[in-house]
Amino acid sequence: MKPIRTLCVVAALAGLLGVDSATASMSDVLARAHQADWKAFDPENTLYMKLPRGGVVIALAPQFAPRAVAAIKAFVRAHAFDRGAIIRAQDDYVVQWAIRDDKTHSPAKIPAEFDRARDAGFVALADPDTYAPQVGFDGGFPAARDASREWLVHCYGMVGVARDAAPDSGDGSELYAVIGQSPRNLDRNVTLVGRIVHGMELLSTLTRGTEALGFYAKPEERMTIESIRVAADIPVKERVALMALRDDSATFAKLVADQRMRKEPWYVNSPGHIGVCNVPLPVR
Amino acid sequence: MKPIRTLCVVAALAGLLGVDSATASMSDVLARAHQADWKAFDPENTLYMKLPRGGVVIALAPQFAPRAVAAIKAFVRAHAFDRGAIIRAQDDYVVQWAIRDDKTHSPAKIPAEFDRARDAGFVALADPDTYAPQVGFDGGFPAARDASREWLVHCYGMVGVARDAAPDSGDGSELYAVIGQSPRNLDRNVTLVGRIVHGMELLSTLTRGTEALGFYAKPEERMTIESIRVAADIPVKERVALMALRDDSATFAKLVADQRMRKEPWYVNSPGHIGVCNVPLPVR
Repeated sequence: MKPIRTLCVVAALAGLLGVDSATASMSDVLARAHQADWKAFDPENTLYMKLPRGGVVIALAPQFAPRAVAAIKAFVRAHAFDRGAIIRAQDDYVVQWAIRDDKTHSPAKIPAEFDRARDAGFVALADPDTYAPQVGFDGGFPAARDASREWLVHCYGMVGVARDAAPDSGDGSELYAVIGQSPRNLDRNVTLVGRIVHGMELLSTLTRGTEALGFYAKPEERMTIESIRVAADIPVKERVALMALRDDSATFAKLVADQRMRKEPWYVNSPGHIGVCNVPLPVR
Repeated sequence: MKPIRTLCVVAALAGLLGVDSATASMSDVLARAHQADWKAFDPENTLYMKLPRGGVVIALAPQFAPRAVAAIKAFVRAHAFDRGAIIRAQDDYVVQWAIRDDKTHSPAKIPAEFDRARDAGFVALADPDTYAPQVGFDGGFPAARDASREWLVHCYGMVGVARDAAPDSGDGSELYAVIGQSPRNLDRNVTLVGRIVHGMELLSTLTRGTEALGFYAKPEERMTIESIRVAADIPVKERVALMALRDDSATFAKLVADQRMRKEPWYVNSPGHIGVCNVPLPVR
């Protein structure tokens, strides 16, 4: 083996957990960040999912999906996800999990929250996008907008509410996370509620299901969820102290500019552009 | 569990192994395909990688990277990859593997094959792209072009030649496959040589490495490669009879159009566009 022969030793990982795999240049930018560039996740809108293989942390986006987030937290606080299971893992698409059973499940339907009115907090990306008139970031989440509406977009690690044919049929009792190429065709067709900010690899490496759409064929193939908790409900000292780089900070703007132009000597051709799902959203 | 509550029962999986996870509409389109719409992979440019967990099939693209493909096949035919190993798995990025050791390794450098002259066979996609003036398909591979040059692009499942800082330092003894969001920033910076057409999930589910850039910390964490063979070198009856949908067929054009507009009732908002890395490249 040639340990020094690596694919792009200075190439950034464009991931949601970018810090661990940061480039030298990205590390430098982050090292120079001010304390105020980092923001702690709100414990009232952070979920801890405990799996037999470790913990996953989900940052919720109530500003985009207030009703779905409230419904999910109600399921969580009723312990409905405890001893629930991961029921689906479809390669290059999604992992999906569900509450323990239907018994605690409210028959109330939740109106779709596929988009919302435009918001002044949108941090626009100058680059063209295949699917939307404009893309960018809002509150730490990848987003898009047109002249009147704004919506979260399906990047790697984003979490959404599974639904049936009716737009209001997703009640928060089944959620999915994107584990492959961004399925942007789903944008504005499903309510996105947040993103995985820690432990993504525990989901992305799950054995794929062999039934249609990646559902597991047998109950014993499903991984049991030990518990899901709202961070605010557990003692402070047991929480994971994670912070996100603010997407409205100068540090983030510098990071995006660096990722777009790639001045590291490894690059023969500067990309010149960057996709919304290729921008790292650093978490420390 | 609610088995019928699924995320988008009619939503296509936008993957390189699209057939297994095809939508009803995509299945219908493929069922109506003519025999001539399907093309067998050339055994002289197909690799079988045998892992302890199963087999991976790689379709090579000598039309884009003749020297790199020749070098890789020389390593394969010298059995240099046998008892080689997967040395890296970085979440949302790449899995990388290498020959057994440096002993068989030629000191000859291979000139970069990052792009080539434009080709008449290019099947253009009408949709805008973030990174390239135009995207499309050529010979069954996702590609892009400008006024004079054409190149393969980094979509999920694409295979490339790892290199050091010098553009000609990738000699084919270490290869990688994309396992996450398409890292399009690497386009025209690495020689792409093909794509995984079977067994992708055997790579995408590998435990991630914990060293920088996802390298495995200890040799025992690496998965051993039992062998890699050129399909032409093994008996016909032992080959995997795979065929690709021709990207210059009317069936493929219909499939792309359907995936772009999504008329299934599940869709509230038609995407209206499709990304080059979201187009399924069916294999049967």
